[in-house]
Amino acid sequence: MTAMIDLVAFDGDDTLWHSESEFAVTQQKLRSLLEEHCDPAELDARLIDAERGNLELYGYGAKAFTLSVIETAVELLGDRLTGADVRAILDIGKELLRHPVALLDGAAEAVAGAAEHWPVVLVTKGDLFHQESKVARSGLGDLFSGVEIVGEKDPAAYERVCRRHGIAPDRLVMIGNSLRSDAAPVLDLGGWAVHVPYELTWELEQADDEAKVRSAPRFRELGSLADVPALLSTIATD
Amino acid sequence: MTAMIDLVAFDGDDTLWHSESEFAVTQQKLRSLLEEHCDPAELDARLIDAERGNLELYGYGAKAFTLSVIETAVELLGDRLTGADVRAILDIGKELLRHPVALLDGAAEAVAGAAEHWPVVLVTKGDLFHQESKVARSGLGDLFSGVEIVGEKDPAAYERVCRRHGIAPDRLVMIGNSLRSDAAPVLDLGGWAVHVPYELTWELEQADDEAKVRSAPRFRELGSLADVPALLSTIATD
Repeated sequence: MTAMIDLVAFDGDDTLWHSESEFAVTQQKLRSLLEEHCDPAELDARLIDAERGNLELYGYGAKAFTLSVIETAVELLGDRLTGADVRAILDIGKELLRHPVALLDGAAEAVAGAAEHWPVVLVTKGDLFHQESKVARSGLGDLFSGVEIVGEKDPAAYERVCRRHGIAPDRLVMIGNSLRSDAAPVLDLGGWAVHVPYELTWELEQADDEAKVRSAPRFRELGSLADVPALLSTIATD
Repeated sequence: MTAMIDLVAFDGDDTLWHSESEFAVTQQKLRSLLEEHCDPAELDARLIDAERGNLELYGYGAKAFTLSVIETAVELLGDRLTGADVRAILDIGKELLRHPVALLDGAAEAVAGAAEHWPVVLVTKGDLFHQESKVARSGLGDLFSGVEIVGEKDPAAYERVCRRHGIAPDRLVMIGNSLRSDAAPVLDLGGWAVHVPYELTWELEQADDEAKVRSAPRFRELGSLADVPALLSTIATD
């Protein structure tokens, strides 16, 4: 049962554990905090602009998010921003960093099922420190033979992961919730992509060429992580 | 000439390129910004306390630093902190992230000299995104067969680096400016540590057991990176 697969890779945020929904809760707290001063829709729009503008400099993750929130608050409120507001924003960012890791349904079974047959790695982007801490708190750490935290999920990053593990990209299966980051670059390299959609998608994660990704011969979509082990068996004996 | 060495690892910040001196310049800018409101010595003391307190949550790097500065400013100034102050702090943090990479004397020769004979990797902690960007801007990227950005430089992290590269830790030579992060954990694993001190040491990088580190049989100290290739030859033929 190992015919076509040499390595199974999982994304973390919104694939194995909740992340975007925590950001959504956080954003609601921010709206409440600043609602006296600004319209919630404007806050959301300005925040996503700031995140986009800062992406190249700050990268991904909760610290980048917190800095973008502070920047947005300064821009919207100017000198009406109080020390107490800033302290409240810092506290909201720290809560996000400290938040317990909530696994998605079927996550443990999917990873354990894959790990019975193949080496399993986590491939995630975001903040190194925070991601390592989330892996530790997920309880799944021992099932992974590697944790790869990459700056950007492009074909070159997946190629490096394959090289590190001494496998050909066409024998990689990547499982994740993002068409743009988890599926498209792996399909480009000739590997298998399994898409398990999450209830929410961060605006900067929308795929530009969704139809192309979905029509690739090695693209699969699942409604639930629980079906991952069975799908891997099918791919392996394809 | 490869007898005792299978892998040569370099630290980045303050070993190959300036980092702490940039933080020092940044800290001077912060003192000037806030001098009307608070005593510079108190600012420094409170900032290092905040950095220490946030280390477990924020990790290392320029974004962590910026968040700790904002926290310190809020604590010291309370509601006297203005939106303009916060914006100025964000700008100072962004300048730090954007700052061009200034190589230390001998850095290029040291890495190129080592790379002629052995695989060379960069082992650095800090912010993933910022570090990858610094490697790219250093012009040394092509000389490295790997860039390992670790959350904490402890023996377990160096063991993972060795495992990834398929080598025994006693055949690793690590070159860096920190006794605590670059030398002690590698000596613990039985590897070689080459200490190249930098002009400044961040307070949280002081080694607890300096004498023990310095007396280890596989500890070496160099005044300049230019002497690295010759020292590696000596170690290899030891």
